[in-house]
Amino acid sequence: MADALAKLGHRTCAALREPSLGPCFGIKGGGTGGGESQLSPSDDINLHFTGDFHAITAAHNLLSAAIDNHLHFSSDLDLESRKVSWPRVLDVNDRALRNVVVGLGGKTFGMPRQGSFDITAASEVMAMLCLADDAEDLRVRIDRTLVGFNRKGEPVSAGQIGATGAMLALLRDAVHPNLVQTKYGTPAVVHGGPFANIAHGCNSVIATKMAMHFADWVVTEAGFGFDLGAEKFFDIKCRSAGLKTAAVVIVATIRALKMHGGKGLKELSPPDVESVQRGIVNLEKHIESAKLLGQRPIVAINRFTDDTDGEIAAVEAWCASQEVPFAACEHFARGPDGAIDLANKVVEVAQQGEPVGNTVYPLDASVPDKIDAVARGIYGAKGVAFTGQARKDLAQIEALGYANLPICVAKTQSSLSDNPALRGRPSDFEITVRNVQINAGAGFLVVLTGDVLRMPGLPRKPQYANVDLVDGTIKGLR
Amino acid sequence: MADALAKLGHRTCAALREPSLGPCFGIKGGGTGGGESQLSPSDDINLHFTGDFHAITAAHNLLSAAIDNHLHFSSDLDLESRKVSWPRVLDVNDRALRNVVVGLGGKTFGMPRQGSFDITAASEVMAMLCLADDAEDLRVRIDRTLVGFNRKGEPVSAGQIGATGAMLALLRDAVHPNLVQTKYGTPAVVHGGPFANIAHGCNSVIATKMAMHFADWVVTEAGFGFDLGAEKFFDIKCRSAGLKTAAVVIVATIRALKMHGGKGLKELSPPDVESVQRGIVNLEKHIESAKLLGQRPIVAINRFTDDTDGEIAAVEAWCASQEVPFAACEHFARGPDGAIDLANKVVEVAQQGEPVGNTVYPLDASVPDKIDAVARGIYGAKGVAFTGQARKDLAQIEALGYANLPICVAKTQSSLSDNPALRGRPSDFEITVRNVQINAGAGFLVVLTGDVLRMPGLPRKPQYANVDLVDGTIKGLR
Amino acid sequence: MADALAKLGHRTCAALREPSLGPCFGIKGGGTGGGESQLSPSDDINLHFTGDFHAITAAHNLLSAAIDNHLHFSSDLDLESRKVSWPRVLDVNDRALRNVVVGLGGKTFGMPRQGSFDITAASEVMAMLCLADDAEDLRVRIDRTLVGFNRKGEPVSAGQIGATGAMLALLRDAVHPNLVQTKYGTPAVVHGGPFANIAHGCNSVIATKMAMHFADWVVTEAGFGFDLGAEKFFDIKCRSAGLKTAAVVIVATIRALKMHGGKGLKELSPPDVESVQRGIVNLEKHIESAKLLGQRPIVAINRFTDDTDGEIAAVEAWCASQEVPFAACEHFARGPDGAIDLANKVVEVAQQGEPVGNTVYPLDASVPDKIDAVARGIYGAKGVAFTGQARKDLAQIEALGYANLPICVAKTQSSLSDNPALRGRPSDFEITVRNVQINAGAGFLVVLTGDVLRMPGLPRKPQYANVDLVDGTIKGLR
Amino acid sequence: MADALAKLGHRTCAALREPSLGPCFGIKGGGTGGGESQLSPSDDINLHFTGDFHAITAAHNLLSAAIDNHLHFSSDLDLESRKVSWPRVLDVNDRALRNVVVGLGGKTFGMPRQGSFDITAASEVMAMLCLADDAEDLRVRIDRTLVGFNRKGEPVSAGQIGATGAMLALLRDAVHPNLVQTKYGTPAVVHGGPFANIAHGCNSVIATKMAMHFADWVVTEAGFGFDLGAEKFFDIKCRSAGLKTAAVVIVATIRALKMHGGKGLKELSPPDVESVQRGIVNLEKHIESAKLLGQRPIVAINRFTDDTDGEIAAVEAWCASQEVPFAACEHFARGPDGAIDLANKVVEVAQQGEPVGNTVYPLDASVPDKIDAVARGIYGAKGVAFTGQARKDLAQIEALGYANLPICVAKTQSSLSDNPALRGRPSDFEITVRNVQINAGAGFLVVLTGDVLRMPGLPRKPQYANVDLVDGTIKGLR
Repeated sequence: MADALAKLGHRTCAALREPSLGPCFGIKGGGTGGGESQLSPSDDINLHFTGDFHAITAAHNLLSAAIDNHLHFSSDLDLESRKVSWPRVLDVNDRALRNVVVGLGGKTFGMPRQGSFDITAASEVMAMLCLADDAEDLRVRIDRTLVGFNRKGEPVSAGQIGATGAMLALLRDAVHPNLVQTKYGTPAVVHGGPFANIAHGCNSVIATKMAMHFADWVVTEAGFGFDLGAEKFFDIKCRSAGLKTAAVVIVATIRALKMHGGKGLKELSPPDVESVQRGIVNLEKHIESAKLLGQRPIVAINRFTDDTDGEIAAVEAWCASQEVPFAACEHFARGPDGAIDLANKVVEVAQQGEPVGNTVYPLDASVPDKIDAVARGIYGAKGVAFTGQARKDLAQIEALGYANLPICVAKTQSSLSDNPALRGRPSDFEITVRNVQINAGAGFLVVLTGDVLRMPGLPRKPQYANVDLVDGTIKGLR
Repeated sequence: MADALAKLGHRTCAALREPSLGPCFGIKGGGTGGGESQLSPSDDINLHFTGDFHAITAAHNLLSAAIDNHLHFSSDLDLESRKVSWPRVLDVNDRALRNVVVGLGGKTFGMPRQGSFDITAASEVMAMLCLADDAEDLRVRIDRTLVGFNRKGEPVSAGQIGATGAMLALLRDAVHPNLVQTKYGTPAVVHGGPFANIAHGCNSVIATKMAMHFADWVVTEAGFGFDLGAEKFFDIKCRSAGLKTAAVVIVATIRALKMHGGKGLKELSPPDVESVQRGIVNLEKHIESAKLLGQRPIVAINRFTDDTDGEIAAVEAWCASQEVPFAACEHFARGPDGAIDLANKVVEVAQQGEPVGNTVYPLDASVPDKIDAVARGIYGAKGVAFTGQARKDLAQIEALGYANLPICVAKTQSSLSDNPALRGRPSDFEITVRNVQINAGAGFLVVLTGDVLRMPGLPRKPQYANVDLVDGTIKGLR
Repeated sequence: MADALAKLGHRTCAALREPSLGPCFGIKGGGTGGGESQLSPSDDINLHFTGDFHAITAAHNLLSAAIDNHLHFSSDLDLESRKVSWPRVLDVNDRALRNVVVGLGGKTFGMPRQGSFDITAASEVMAMLCLADDAEDLRVRIDRTLVGFNRKGEPVSAGQIGATGAMLALLRDAVHPNLVQTKYGTPAVVHGGPFANIAHGCNSVIATKMAMHFADWVVTEAGFGFDLGAEKFFDIKCRSAGLKTAAVVIVATIRALKMHGGKGLKELSPPDVESVQRGIVNLEKHIESAKLLGQRPIVAINRFTDDTDGEIAAVEAWCASQEVPFAACEHFARGPDGAIDLANKVVEVAQQGEPVGNTVYPLDASVPDKIDAVARGIYGAKGVAFTGQARKDLAQIEALGYANLPICVAKTQSSLSDNPALRGRPSDFEITVRNVQINAGAGFLVVLTGDVLRMPGLPRKPQYANVDLVDGTIKGLR
Repeated sequence: MADALAKLGHRTCAALREPSLGPCFGIKGGGTGGGESQLSPSDDINLHFTGDFHAITAAHNLLSAAIDNHLHFSSDLDLESRKVSWPRVLDVNDRALRNVVVGLGGKTFGMPRQGSFDITAASEVMAMLCLADDAEDLRVRIDRTLVGFNRKGEPVSAGQIGATGAMLALLRDAVHPNLVQTKYGTPAVVHGGPFANIAHGCNSVIATKMAMHFADWVVTEAGFGFDLGAEKFFDIKCRSAGLKTAAVVIVATIRALKMHGGKGLKELSPPDVESVQRGIVNLEKHIESAKLLGQRPIVAINRFTDDTDGEIAAVEAWCASQEVPFAACEHFARGPDGAIDLANKVVEVAQQGEPVGNTVYPLDASVPDKIDAVARGIYGAKGVAFTGQARKDLAQIEALGYANLPICVAKTQSSLSDNPALRGRPSDFEITVRNVQINAGAGFLVVLTGDVLRMPGLPRKPQYANVDLVDGTIKGLR
């Protein structure tokens, strides 16, 4: 779309997330787009790029090592080893690191305790960096990060650990955005890559603002569907950074609509207009949610080879009936030309009014009310249930003074509900909140509605087996 | 010295090791020299530099994750979880990671087993990269690396794990040397940084050869004293790469000579010619060792502020009596000028004969004979004792066909013997070998003569507390 | 009551559970009754008694050691270490043993894996011994016990481990019941002591039958309230052993009725007839449940010092209104005389009809139907919800052929529901089943409705601190 | 021998150790003798006997649970979790319990730390009970037992933990000796069974004294050879209890002499007088050691079926040449008659003088001097070497005031030296002390000269597989 806007003569810049090394070698593969719609140099971006992820890994783990050093020397902080919540991170898919015991080997080898490794994208340092205004704001965020409790039960912050300066030194260059371009020469600021479940899933505020500084049109993304990606984009990123949006594009695929229409993963290829039509209820909810936020949504179908004209037409017809602008896109195959229609619609919509910056809930609402607002307003739930643990967490959040933070709901991306099996537009369901975690540095509360893995595993047949270096060129990385 | 050679008009290039992040924030501080004798840009070199260490970390840990993935899925390799010897690595000082249990949490979270994290400098990938001729040689080395055994007791190599290609992709840029310069503009190729105890402690062969390609004079280093650094430099690096040396500079300090003369760490400042003279026996042995290798050693005193002229003169006089060239250096304070005398001596010595490439032992000697040759010839021991475990290791090395590899002895750097308390030039001592490890990829056998930590810890008052980022500039990193 | 029946001239014998060592030194204290209603010699019974618990511990752990030995030697059973479900046991309150990692230290020290220790009362060997007809039946039960799965996913039984004979040797004497007497000389067979949540909570079948062989009247007990204790007594023990009951005594206390009437733990002492009356709805449900099972319940109030005549009268009046026989008992203070009224009522009721052996559900009902029958019929729930894990467990139970076993529900004893906070007679609640475990040897399915600890912990001020040996006599054990 | 003394008309009683359950099901089998020289009822003695081992297990583990409870609640003792040295115990061969991590699962599940399980025979409670004069002395011993250190580095005793009284209650009956008889009706007091390496390997002092009270002749044993068993018997048990011996019988076998004469384990059956004669040097050292202690040794050959008259005659002839009384014994085959000759010799020797109570070293010697005295005097070493760890341990022992305790050397039983491969009578060897542990309750210092396993493992084909219960009778237990 950025390429298409540029082709239309607009000064355009994309603002996008950096890929993580882990998935490159696991299931998913690289993260720079594909076909005629791709960032360049894609191998470099997919692998170490400018070292931002490595710097975040290093800064994160320096804090981890410093925490264990406090435990080892029984420092004045009097940390309770069983209440340290700051993990370690590595940018690799490695399930064996999800649950570990560290500090074994005797008195000179640290304090034994249970720990864990998350993938770097799930590091709170990543989320902080992506929401920070600048290096000094990042310092404030690191300092205030909650890393555990002392033996009296009082909270301990990263600032008390004393490694903030060194972490900032390690992040000196990582806070700066990285400028690359698309295959068609449109500039793209690629910076930051937080998880889209336990974090907010958007590129950095610094990158978005830099793009806005140089271009008239900035195209950015929000990870996962409108229920997860957009809600966090508006409630967390835009609110925090004071951003407004001129237009919202909801991207759908015929395949996904078929799944929401009841088809299984292996039944998606044959033409099936009826399933598409049945699945449109899912899209309908996302459109309603966008409108709820005062946005003017445009629906874009990202066309796949298997998609038939009939299926596309069915979506177009439905959109027309709802008076929602629609465009079918073929940028993968055709580059900028494949998204010209979409770009025109976007410009048209954007010029209909002022940019909008609404949110789903006010920050001074209670945490349960915020969750309720998202659950009812965006997921279409009839209510929210809290487990005993979640209730304990909420009480602690209140007591520690974190109740005014926005929420970041970790929910399955496979359903509007918290049950991955419920496709389409489920109704009459409750969202069950299992626990609520404080990300004081990032500045949000992670609301967990299911088991969320913060470290992926490798599949039985991993992607890494296909990758090689041939005459200095990387092959097999997609 | 490189600066001084350059000042003398010689086309000179230094070939040096890259610093590790861990010590920067731990005890030791940065690794780019100091004063007027320093690499530039030093902060960048000390921190992420060109990302080589991060790439090595990533490649190393991808192999680790792949190994645990084989265990998790009980793959055809039928790996014995208790016989996996490939660790994980992180470039941080973190004692709590020395001994860990990974894979906890149930059947979907990997296979429980004891594991460990080494610092990245101790990664066998680092040693491989430093000894490799090029990327293809690195591929061969990775493929042949021994990572464990299957349940039948047969060796399993990294090649069987199937991640070599992906590792090479991750190392694509890291195999290329990094060109920087000294404060005085002398070019320096800074590349690779293996441990000097469990590895060979020299910058990469690729870097040394590149420097030799462009310059007439190449100044390089070998970590720790002549007994450890130089022996490995000649027996491992030079033998493997076909390198010869024109001159050998043995660097001494008045402080170290005092320690070998019987003084304690806190008694080194007051002038004390007698202790210096008593400690010279240690220097004497290093000179003898150099001559044993056919080298023409020059003694250089790296002058510290506290050193008196009388102390310097004592060393100079002794060197004269032995007909060994001598130079006192003040490059820290005076830059190139401070090492002009040394540079002149080096040129003089180098022009006296052809470069030499002798080794302490032939590769086809038995492993115990190789160890014996180093222990007697270089350490001055009267013999070598092997523990039961070491004998078992030797039998396995023989059985698996690794007996023809060179040895890499891990010994304390505080003494010529394996007892750190024995200063000066001890005699009538035996070296006790505790175990012998196979580094098939690096291509050497690690001979352990004591407890060697492969992962440093942070001290009670760590260096990281002094580091900060002020207006975009890093402060406190030394 | 047994003492009172004996005093009335009936040939009477009690059949009771053995106490566990753990609680003796933890919170609860000893388990031989108290005051004038006590077993003798109580210290011996409370501590090692005849060694039955120790024998069960030894037999259980021999099987555990044998399983880890199969893992260690990678035996033909090809056990999957992560799917071993047989724990270890110790007769002590030790929370640190709840979750452990065993097999650390290297290849000769076993296979690393996560394990756990339960208290001996929670051993499946205990449950087996208590339900076995004789030593040969115990052999059959041990042999069929499910201890884990192999790497192909097939079940592995204790019989395949090969230690059954040795376990039976260790249990040779433990299968024989232990004859003691009350303070008033009434014989009591004290044998077996399984947990009342994850097991069925009754003394051994062998003991009950031996008591029935020698006496005309046998008084036995079922752990926890009628909802847990009696249901399991009828559905598991009586069904399996072919036992019928002549009369059922439901024991209540004024304190418990007050709690069900809304009072807190610290508000139970002051007289409060209204709270007692409000709490009677809980007793009412137990009486209905007894009648549902065809039983003729008698209500007995176990009178405490604080209880007022008015409170007792309130219960008596209510019972009269329901035509349920009632007796207030003071055996703690008055011995046999204190229970004469109850004994007379029991005899009267028993003579009104034949013994009854009804159950709540037939064995050939589906597992969900069995759970539903108990939840609706005995707890008064409106239905049962199953978590995803529970559904997986049920599918596996079906596939492995265990669907015809009776169920053993682990539920809080503080409420008729699975929410400990719901007192009185809750309605409009669902029971949530979290998982279902197969106890193939004991012959039941453990249906878990919450977190059940199988190993107690010591409190901050443990009971053990009060115990001492003074001149050969044990003091402070209550 | 006791049977033979009884047959000669002497009032005789044996005082022996109780067997451990672990070996019964592992490699070694039962421990009640065999053939015509056996204790009765052997199955009962081999299995639970009177529950002494179980009581020790329970008392030991109560202390363990109490220690972890102090850690869990961060009690005033401020225990350092990494310096707790009190293990747990189980009477089973289970290598997977040698090294464990306990306290996992979160804040309510104890404090994570590395722990271990020893076999019950290795419990310090066992050693204490065996050396105690009575229950009150046992109380003193438990109270003073060193269980760890606090975070300031100060020692913490079991008395501070607060469970001594409860432990004594659990041990109330276990302190009383158990009276059984031999197959021929000679009384035997069987009580206590400490390890013979890390403990002193003798039955209880209480049992020995009780036997001495009732009988004129008491036959007792000391585990392992004269170098380990007898030295500890005299230096630890006899010194502590004020016992003297009337005669010492050194038991040898032709098979053992052949091994010391150079034969391998599978070459011992064929007649071989020369090997026997070569091996006699080992016996010679034991005789010299006995004489060094002022004892009058008698040599007894425990005759095996394979032994030839010629081999026996060779030993007899050598003994005659040394004027050492000699007897060949056949009690296994012939009962009392088989040991009549020995009994006569014993009586004869005993009547030659007064009982003797010498020791190898005085208690007020320094610990290194004590070790030196045993190494030179009893093992025939030329000296003792201490590792760095051992030196640290000695310094701590001195600082904590334990230097006046007797030593308990843990050394291989296969050689007079600490190298199991050195048979016969080695000379010119040093004993290497690896570390020295404080058993403050038992009242000795454990001097470790090698890796000593405190928990046996099961072999690939364990003994338990042969055991069964047939018609109430145990089969296969030997």
